[in-house]
Amino acid sequence: MNIAIVGGSGYAGVELIRLLLDHPHVTIVAVTSRAEAGQSLVEYYQHFLGHPVAESLRFALPDLETLSQADLIFFATPNGTAMHSAQALLAQGKKVIDLAADFRLPDQADWSQWYGMAHAAPELLAEAVYGLADLAPQQIRQARLVANPGCYPTSVQLPLKPLIAAGLLDLTQPMIADCKSGITGAGRTGQVQHSFAQVSENFAAYGIEHHRHWIEIHNGLRTAEQPTLDFTFTPHLLPMPRGIFSTIYASLKGDPVQSLAQARQVLQHTYANTPFVQLLPEGQVPQTKAVRGSNSCHCNLFLANSGKLVVTSVIDNLLKGAAGQAVQNMNLMCGWPITTGLSMTGIMP
Amino acid sequence: MNIAIVGGSGYAGVELIRLLLDHPHVTIVAVTSRAEAGQSLVEYYQHFLGHPVAESLRFALPDLETLSQADLIFFATPNGTAMHSAQALLAQGKKVIDLAADFRLPDQADWSQWYGMAHAAPELLAEAVYGLADLAPQQIRQARLVANPGCYPTSVQLPLKPLIAAGLLDLTQPMIADCKSGITGAGRTGQVQHSFAQVSENFAAYGIEHHRHWIEIHNGLRTAEQPTLDFTFTPHLLPMPRGIFSTIYASLKGDPVQSLAQARQVLQHTYANTPFVQLLPEGQVPQTKAVRGSNSCHCNLFLANSGKLVVTSVIDNLLKGAAGQAVQNMNLMCGWPITTGLSMTGIMP
Amino acid sequence: MNIAIVGGSGYAGVELIRLLLDHPHVTIVAVTSRAEAGQSLVEYYQHFLGHPVAESLRFALPDLETLSQADLIFFATPNGTAMHSAQALLAQGKKVIDLAADFRLPDQADWSQWYGMAHAAPELLAEAVYGLADLAPQQIRQARLVANPGCYPTSVQLPLKPLIAAGLLDLTQPMIADCKSGITGAGRTGQVQHSFAQVSENFAAYGIEHHRHWIEIHNGLRTAEQPTLDFTFTPHLLPMPRGIFSTIYASLKGDPVQSLAQARQVLQHTYANTPFVQLLPEGQVPQTKAVRGSNSCHCNLFLANSGKLVVTSVIDNLLKGAAGQAVQNMNLMCGWPITTGLSMTGIMP
Amino acid sequence: MNIAIVGGSGYAGVELIRLLLDHPHVTIVAVTSRAEAGQSLVEYYQHFLGHPVAESLRFALPDLETLSQADLIFFATPNGTAMHSAQALLAQGKKVIDLAADFRLPDQADWSQWYGMAHAAPELLAEAVYGLADLAPQQIRQARLVANPGCYPTSVQLPLKPLIAAGLLDLTQPMIADCKSGITGAGRTGQVQHSFAQVSENFAAYGIEHHRHWIEIHNGLRTAEQPTLDFTFTPHLLPMPRGIFSTIYASLKGDPVQSLAQARQVLQHTYANTPFVQLLPEGQVPQTKAVRGSNSCHCNLFLANSGKLVVTSVIDNLLKGAAGQAVQNMNLMCGWPITTGLSMTGIMP
Repeated sequence: MNIAIVGGSGYAGVELIRLLLDHPHVTIVAVTSRAEAGQSLVEYYQHFLGHPVAESLRFALPDLETLSQADLIFFATPNGTAMHSAQALLAQGKKVIDLAADFRLPDQADWSQWYGMAHAAPELLAEAVYGLADLAPQQIRQARLVANPGCYPTSVQLPLKPLIAAGLLDLTQPMIADCKSGITGAGRTGQVQHSFAQVSENFAAYGIEHHRHWIEIHNGLRTAEQPTLDFTFTPHLLPMPRGIFSTIYASLKGDPVQSLAQARQVLQHTYANTPFVQLLPEGQVPQTKAVRGSNSCHCNLFLANSGKLVVTSVIDNLLKGAAGQAVQNMNLMCGWPITTGLSMTGIMP
Repeated sequence: MNIAIVGGSGYAGVELIRLLLDHPHVTIVAVTSRAEAGQSLVEYYQHFLGHPVAESLRFALPDLETLSQADLIFFATPNGTAMHSAQALLAQGKKVIDLAADFRLPDQADWSQWYGMAHAAPELLAEAVYGLADLAPQQIRQARLVANPGCYPTSVQLPLKPLIAAGLLDLTQPMIADCKSGITGAGRTGQVQHSFAQVSENFAAYGIEHHRHWIEIHNGLRTAEQPTLDFTFTPHLLPMPRGIFSTIYASLKGDPVQSLAQARQVLQHTYANTPFVQLLPEGQVPQTKAVRGSNSCHCNLFLANSGKLVVTSVIDNLLKGAAGQAVQNMNLMCGWPITTGLSMTGIMP
Repeated sequence: MNIAIVGGSGYAGVELIRLLLDHPHVTIVAVTSRAEAGQSLVEYYQHFLGHPVAESLRFALPDLETLSQADLIFFATPNGTAMHSAQALLAQGKKVIDLAADFRLPDQADWSQWYGMAHAAPELLAEAVYGLADLAPQQIRQARLVANPGCYPTSVQLPLKPLIAAGLLDLTQPMIADCKSGITGAGRTGQVQHSFAQVSENFAAYGIEHHRHWIEIHNGLRTAEQPTLDFTFTPHLLPMPRGIFSTIYASLKGDPVQSLAQARQVLQHTYANTPFVQLLPEGQVPQTKAVRGSNSCHCNLFLANSGKLVVTSVIDNLLKGAAGQAVQNMNLMCGWPITTGLSMTGIMP
Repeated sequence: MNIAIVGGSGYAGVELIRLLLDHPHVTIVAVTSRAEAGQSLVEYYQHFLGHPVAESLRFALPDLETLSQADLIFFATPNGTAMHSAQALLAQGKKVIDLAADFRLPDQADWSQWYGMAHAAPELLAEAVYGLADLAPQQIRQARLVANPGCYPTSVQLPLKPLIAAGLLDLTQPMIADCKSGITGAGRTGQVQHSFAQVSENFAAYGIEHHRHWIEIHNGLRTAEQPTLDFTFTPHLLPMPRGIFSTIYASLKGDPVQSLAQARQVLQHTYANTPFVQLLPEGQVPQTKAVRGSNSCHCNLFLANSGKLVVTSVIDNLLKGAAGQAVQNMNLMCGWPITTGLSMTGIMP
């Protein structure tokens, strides 16, 4: 299977390259980057030195001819990029996985409002499958076009959607996702505010009044009976490169202790067939470090003394929150075992 | 004014020593530490080398005779220590400031339940003044015994109490404090879980089901009309030494935009006479780094797109959350300007 | 091939487990830890959760019966441990790789002097092969007992030994290795001095007057003509978990520019057949981050304006400096390709 | 005394502002920044919020009229800036302290060669006093124009110059300064290579073949008898904001143990009258953290087992290595006690 990666110089792209270089069933035929076209991959990213395939790769321009050499194309590009090429590639019989947001919202008006531009391929919105890989494997297996979920939405939805589907949560009550992300969530940037001197020993929220992942998460959590949720989402930046920790506050229906036990069972049952989502033993708190470098999501459930359900979940934002889930989606789309080329074991410490 | 510090070898104690060494109106007559008695301060803490007074200090045993040389005694000791000596010191006409929790809860039964031991000086609970220095200066000025507030409670109450007092919040709605602290909040410990290798590039919650600061904060926020709040508190540990960031979710009464404007006015008015609490300009998010090394609290208010009020606040947990506020309390008790010996300017970057 | 790991609860041990769990030719039959015997691996180290084999492992006691189930035994134990069991295991036809120092020095007197105890198996010292895997593959292939090199000695010898062997350095001149290591070099410890609060934003040397790796490096560098070198070694601890950067000062013979060019050729030629040692393009400085999580050593050569040769080299101390090199040695001893189960690509960023 | 700061938006400038705001004898009349002219200081740097004087400051343009309001002008500007204005200011009777390199080298040809431009005020080179404040107080007291030393040169020269002056070192032998600096040494930059994601958990050398501080240090160390030294200098960047650790290798004359004892006496005697340079007790290694936030230099001497003298020294690069030493120089030039407005106590932890 021939693969192309559009936008290979950002952090999600480079992580995708790392995974695909060692994937047993694929060959990378093109890595593109407008800004770095012509440059050797290993000069740009020293950590690939010594890998025989990586040493032969150079960034190319992302023209259609280049991409057409591949059977499956990953877009690790800014929002509003993949939508311009997806139709042409699908028409050639290619598969497409977009790591950006172009196909994450089924409603065209929502998309235009939250992303501030017209959508260039609205006819694909209905077809695109939202690639929450551990929850929707059947649909993804059939898909030609997969919208890889956002990092925060992945960390929030994986533990929460099954509880909602099982009817365990009181959706009329406020739900709050207080999420903390490693700085790579801000991308490969040269802004002073993301410099080491500024970020080190600092912690702060951002996008409190408005963040695009709100609509993506809200879409994923709402139900037919409760189409609009009292949902608040606050992202924060952590002084560390990778990792998302989500602390989610919700209200259980019925007796809290019994419902909590049921909720544990629901998660265990839902994720019995994937090694990538792990409910921790009772009382253990997930640690971002335990999933660093892996495609895993660790989660656990707690009852606060106020009676609120506190859902906690961790992922590596560049893997399960981006490149790892994208490879898992590729595995599904290609009929390979989901763990092919993916690690379920973090790098500790 | 002669000063003694009981428990001078922990991080709050050592920060207190640093502040008092350069305070123009006090002389440190004793620094005690059972574990380090006899040792020279500068051998234990190299950063005091060169300070002429620090070079002459040795840790002493905390016996009553030693403490009696002082006019004011700080306890930077574990919970359940100050309550054994406070009565005797007050009887000698001394002033006492406890940085631990012994006198933070007015109700003896609450204290015993949350701290797991009998209280040794229940007769002092009513007299002790809760030293939230920027909010209760008048009471503190009259006090003989001040309970220095906890770090999380300080960061949550400073921005929230004035809004509640002004009647702006709907206290029947859930209130959530999602708080993140630098690792010095765990004290000067030698546990593997607090080692650099484990904490670095890690983030996690702890004490989700039960943390002693819950009752302290709840006490501070509840009102006569609403004596029991639907209040949830979750602490987390950040991979950095100092700093607390609190993200607090509450519900405004009335029109959100108008109420938000009123809330800003209330905070500006409440803190007009102290340089240590700063409401940031609209839209600016507080940064822990901006208060590192200072006695300041920076806060700001936001409306989430869900309509929830999001209150954000930062302090340096060892200063405004411990030693700094203790010195501010001393300044009040002694009739000195509150800024004496305290910095309002952080160390950046 | 059945494998046992003695001392599996330290950082080198746990990294070895991670590598071996995904190695295609081996089965872990025992992981021992006196302190943690009986405990489940995944409870102790959350990052293994979800790995089907890891989930079934429990720490065992390190008795001979347990170890005898294996064909090859790794010792990731403190110095002075493997020497007590190695003879018995070899007698049973097992292969042994010691990640500690027991078999690193060929001379018994040296060992006793530098390690402060009598050697329990001096008869094995001559047989043991020093496992600098990329430099001595032939000898390692024949070995029953391999002494896995120390982390600092690996980072210093890989770039330096070939230059000495080629006669390019003036060994009568002072040679200095100024080495900086991530904190995991200090092991999995609970000492206050290794706590996050102390190590974070701190940097210092240690062991300046005496460090055991001095004799190991000196042994590796000296020659028949120059059996005693004017060699100085200073280790330092970096505020980061992993990675060693060695800055080595030496004197080239002859014309510096010509000799430097020759030195580059020597390194290229020496390491032409291993992907794990990479001489960077001229002018590029090795970065510890580029080898984090990989078994690679990146190095480069510079001429200071003083004319001194400055050799720079980076490794991940837990991989190429411990567990990774140990697996590479196993691959050699078992006749497998050296890259089996090892990554040459770091985790960035 | 009225003070102006030219280039107040960089890290040295902002640290200077922090010190001067609390200095009892000075008033800041202007802070300039071409890029930020017109902006309020507290909007640019939140950590000044609440300081009554800071709140009234705005960045101005650095024209002569503005600067003429001051009696003493600090230049915290890029190299090649102060030399254009110094003569005019001195002619008006002002005092000038340049934190950049314009006046650090007495020889015009050296300066042009190492800084790559013609010198605009060569006539001032002879008059300018090199402001190594703890070593040359008498000369600085008389100076109108002080060249504030570089950060690395300060950390290397403070412990080394007195040993050379006392004739204890064999200057015919190689001398090596292996120096490690916190990232603020690179300035307030927005380059990707200085972003948190890249710097965190990374360590590397830079400028190995050529760094401008080489000539400055060489100038400071050479003697009439040994005008050219075999001196090598290698700077490295640490993943932490502040702090320099210098490891310096030199050769003692005579019996090493006796000479070491003499060397200790020399340092104690040289720095008996300044609290800012501290020789640690025998065997204690300096820690960068112990001087963070202070104007101190901690140093110590060791004998490696090779017989080499290993000199270690730490400073805070933004204080003793920049703004702190500049204020100490001002204190000297104005006849105030050297500790005025300066802390000798670091912020720990």
